Amino acid sequence: MLEWVAIESDSSNVLKRPDLHRMMETTAQKLRLMGGTVELVDIGEQELPNGQTLALPKVVTATFGTDPNKHTVCVYGHVDVQPAKLEDGWATDPYNLTDINGNLYGRGASDNKAPVLAWIHAVEAYQALSMELPVNVKFVIEGMEETGSNGLDAMILAQRDTFFSDVDYIIISDCGWLSRRPALTYGTRGNCYFFAEVEGPKQDLHSGVYGGTVIEPMTDLIGILDTLISPSGKILIPGIREAVAPLSDEEWKMYQDIQFDMDSYKNKIGVTQLMYSNKVDLLAHMWRYPTVSVHGIEGAFSDSGSKTVIPAKVTAKFSIRQVPNMDPAMVKKQVTDYLHSVFAKRKSPNKLKVTMVIGAKPWLADTQHPLYEAGKAAVKRVFDMDPDLIREGGTIPIARTFQDVTGKSIIMMPIGGFDDGLHSQNEKMSRYNYIEGTKLFIAYLNEVSQIKKTSV
Amino acid sequence: MLEWVAIESDSSNVLKRPDLHRMMETTAQKLRLMGGTVELVDIGEQELPNGQTLALPKVVTATFGTDPNKHTVCVYGHVDVQPAKLEDGWATDPYNLTDINGNLYGRGASDNKAPVLAWIHAVEAYQALSMELPVNVKFVIEGMEETGSNGLDAMILAQRDTFFSDVDYIIISDCGWLSRRPALTYGTRGNCYFFAEVEGPKQDLHSGVYGGTVIEPMTDLIGILDTLISPSGKILIPGIREAVAPLSDEEWKMYQDIQFDMDSYKNKIGVTQLMYSNKVDLLAHMWRYPTVSVHGIEGAFSDSGSKTVIPAKVTAKFSIRQVPNMDPAMVKKQVTDYLHSVFAKRKSPNKLKVTMVIGAKPWLADTQHPLYEAGKAAVKRVFDMDPDLIREGGTIPIARTFQDVTGKSIIMMPIGGFDDGLHSQNEKMSRYNYIEGTKLFIAYLNEVSQIKKTSV
Repeated sequence: MLEWVAIESDSSNVLKRPDLHRMMETTAQKLRLMGGTVELVDIGEQELPNGQTLALPKVVTATFGTDPNKHTVCVYGHVDVQPAKLEDGWATDPYNLTDINGNLYGRGASDNKAPVLAWIHAVEAYQALSMELPVNVKFVIEGMEETGSNGLDAMILAQRDTFFSDVDYIIISDCGWLSRRPALTYGTRGNCYFFAEVEGPKQDLHSGVYGGTVIEPMTDLIGILDTLISPSGKILIPGIREAVAPLSDEEWKMYQDIQFDMDSYKNKIGVTQLMYSNKVDLLAHMWRYPTVSVHGIEGAFSDSGSKTVIPAKVTAKFSIRQVPNMDPAMVKKQVTDYLHSVFAKRKSPNKLKVTMVIGAKPWLADTQHPLYEAGKAAVKRVFDMDPDLIREGGTIPIARTFQDVTGKSIIMMPIGGFDDGLHSQNEKMSRYNYIEGTKLFIAYLNEVSQIKKTSV
Repeated sequence: MLEWVAIESDSSNVLKRPDLHRMMETTAQKLRLMGGTVELVDIGEQELPNGQTLALPKVVTATFGTDPNKHTVCVYGHVDVQPAKLEDGWATDPYNLTDINGNLYGRGASDNKAPVLAWIHAVEAYQALSMELPVNVKFVIEGMEETGSNGLDAMILAQRDTFFSDVDYIIISDCGWLSRRPALTYGTRGNCYFFAEVEGPKQDLHSGVYGGTVIEPMTDLIGILDTLISPSGKILIPGIREAVAPLSDEEWKMYQDIQFDMDSYKNKIGVTQLMYSNKVDLLAHMWRYPTVSVHGIEGAFSDSGSKTVIPAKVTAKFSIRQVPNMDPAMVKKQVTDYLHSVFAKRKSPNKLKVTMVIGAKPWLADTQHPLYEAGKAAVKRVFDMDPDLIREGGTIPIARTFQDVTGKSIIMMPIGGFDDGLHSQNEKMSRYNYIEGTKLFIAYLNEVSQIKKTSV
C-alpha cells in the first residue's frame, strides 16, 4: 500500500498524467505476477477545456479462473485519487503512507487503493493456502473515477460481449460504512459537475485605477452563484426538485430504523448544527435528494495576503448530486438555461460560458437479491453482526453504467471506515478495516459460490 | 532598474520578507554611494492574522543638501511590489526586466521602482554636471505601500519635528498619466480592504458524502458577498453612499473639459461596455466615487480541474475605494455591521469573522497652489504642452498622512504611462516615460527653487 499511495495518481491534474499511467502499469504488473490474465485496455483520449487532447489512463482488466461451472464475479475499483497538498492542512505528507495509532494516512488510502488491494489480497490468500478459488474472479481497475470515469462507459460497452459476457455479478468496494457497524450499500448519488466562466477585461486590472468603471466578472459570478441554492438548502434551479422520486413510506420507515447518531455525526464534522435536525430528513438529504455544492473559483486571487486586483476571467466550480429520477442531460440544460437567464437579467457586457464536465448518473439496487443475501451472510461470518443497509451520498459513476450496459446485478461492499476523510485532508484507512475487510472479501467469494445458478 | 526589479519585494507575501529587507538595503546603499545622509529607520513589527509578528521593512530616509536658504523637497516613493507569477499570464518572467520594443516589462517597473530611480537619477544628473542642487532634496522610501503602508504613519509622526521639520513640499510620483499627455494629480481614492471569513466544519468534506447535510461555508460567503454591490454598480452597504461629497458644478465642468477617449479606454481594457456610458460619470466613478471590488476567495478550490470538496473555511478578499468624506473607521463599522446582519438572516451555524486589514484615507489638493504652478511650468518646459489635471482612482495611502501630520503641501507628479498595467500581468515602464520623466524631475527641482519663500 505504501508503494501505491506514493504514486500521485491525481486524475484531475493533467500535469500528473505520467504518474497516473505509472499507477495503471503498477496495478497491471501486480496482477500479472499473481498469474492473472491481464490486459491494459486503451480507452483513447480526453479533450481538455482548451481544446487539446490527452491520453486517458489505460483500464486494467484481469482474469483469475475460467471454470464454466463456477460463478464469475467482477471486482471494480479505481486507483486514481483526488488532489492533495501538504499545505491544504495535512498532518503528514499525503503521498507518504504514515501509520499513526493503527490508522494508515495517505491520499487514496481509503478511496480506493486499500479496498482494491484488499481484493487482490483476498485472491492471494486462496493462492497462498493452495485453495482453489470458489468463483472465477475478474478485475476492472480504472484511473479516471475521480473525474467522472471518462472513457470507461465506452470500454464496457465495447467489451460487453467479450470480457463481460461470462460475468455474473459485479462487486464495487468504493464507499464506506455509516458507523462502526459494517454496511452493504444499495444506492449512490450521481454527480453533474459544472464550470461557470465569466470573462470580462482582456487582463487583470488594478482595482484602484479601474474600480467603478468596469463591470467586474467576480461580481457577476457571485451574483449568479447566489441563485443556485437557498440558505435552507432549497435548490432554486427550475425543474430539478420536480424530477426527484418522492420519498415512500417504506423508505421513511427504513431510514427511521437505521442506527445513526446525529450528535456523533456533528462531532465528526465539527459543526453545531446540521441542515436538518431529524434523522430521516438528514439521511434522505445525504442519500436520495440532490444538493448543490460550490467548490471554488479559479482565476481570482486565492492566496493569503491582500491583492487589489479585478480578476479578468473567473471560473466557478460547482456540482449537483444526482438522484433518481434526475437525468444528467436534462440537468445540464436546466442549469445552463437558468444561469444564462439570471445572467441576462444583470445586463452585463461580460461573457458567461457554462460547461458540464462530469455527468454521472445515480444507481439503486434491490436489497433482497441473492447477491445481498450472500453479503449479509459474509458480514455475519466475519463480524458476527448484521450489516446496515445504506445508500451512499457520493458517486460511483460506473455502477449505473454496469447496470445499464451489462444487465448484471451489482453489489457495493464497503470496507472503508465512516471517518476515513475521503477527498479531505488526512484521509486514512484503519489497519482493522483493511485486515477485517480482506477477510470479508475472502468469506464473500465463498458465500457467492453458494448462490444457486438458477437464481442468477 | 534590472537589479531592482529582480528583487521579489512582494510586501503582501510574508515568505518574501527577506527579499523585501534586501530591497530596502539596496535602496539605502544606492543613496549612500551618492553621498546622501542615509538612515534605515526601524518601524517595528506587523501582526499577522494568525497572531504572529513579523519585522516590517525599514524605511529609508536620505538627505541631499541642508542649505537653509533653499526650499527643501521630500520625495516619497516605495520599492515594494504586488504579487506576480509567470503562471498568472505574464509574457516574460515578472522579475527579469525585459525590453520589448522600448517597453521595460517587470513587476514594479512602473509601480513604483522606475519613478523612484528617476528621482535618484535627477539628483545624479545635477551631480554629474557638477551643478549645485537648486533645492535641498530628501527621500522617504518605504516597503509596505502595497499592503497599506503599515508602520509609516507612526514613523512620520515620530519624525515630524526632526526629519520633516525643514521640509517645505512633498512630492509623490506613484501614479500614472491619463493619456499620452503628461498629467499632474491632485487627488487619490483611499482603500478599505476586508477579509470576510466563514468557518464551518473542522475540515474540508467530500461533497458527495456530506453534501446536503451541512450548511456550506461557500454558500454562506457567496450569499453575503452578493449583497455588497448591485449589477449596476450601486453600493448596497447602508451609509456608504450618504457619506460621499456631492459632485459640484465646477467639478462637472472640469471633468467635461478633460480630454478622454472612451473608446480607447474600452479597447485598452478589452471590454465592449463600461459601467457608465458618458465621460463625466465614468471619470467621476474612477476618481471621486467609492466602489466595491471582490478580489477572490482563499481556502476554496482554486486550481484547474475538478475537485468535489466542501471547503471548511473560506475567506473572501474585497475592498472599498475611499473618497471624501468617507472615514475608514466608520466604513469598517458599516461593513462589519452590515455583513453580520445579512449573515444573521441566513440563520447559519457557521462563524463569520470580518476584518479590515487596510484602512487608507483619500487625499485631495488645491490645483492653484504654487507647487502645482511649478509643475505646470516644468511640464511645459520638457513636453511643450500643458498637463492634464487629474485624480487617481488608486490609493497612495501616505498622501493623506503627510498632509494631516506634517501640514506640508503635496504634489503628485506621475511619469508612468496610462497603459503600464499596474498590479496586472505584463506591468511595464516605457523607456520614453522613464527618460523624459527624469528630465521632468530635473526641470521641476529648478521650477520649485523659483517659488517665492513667502508663498510657502
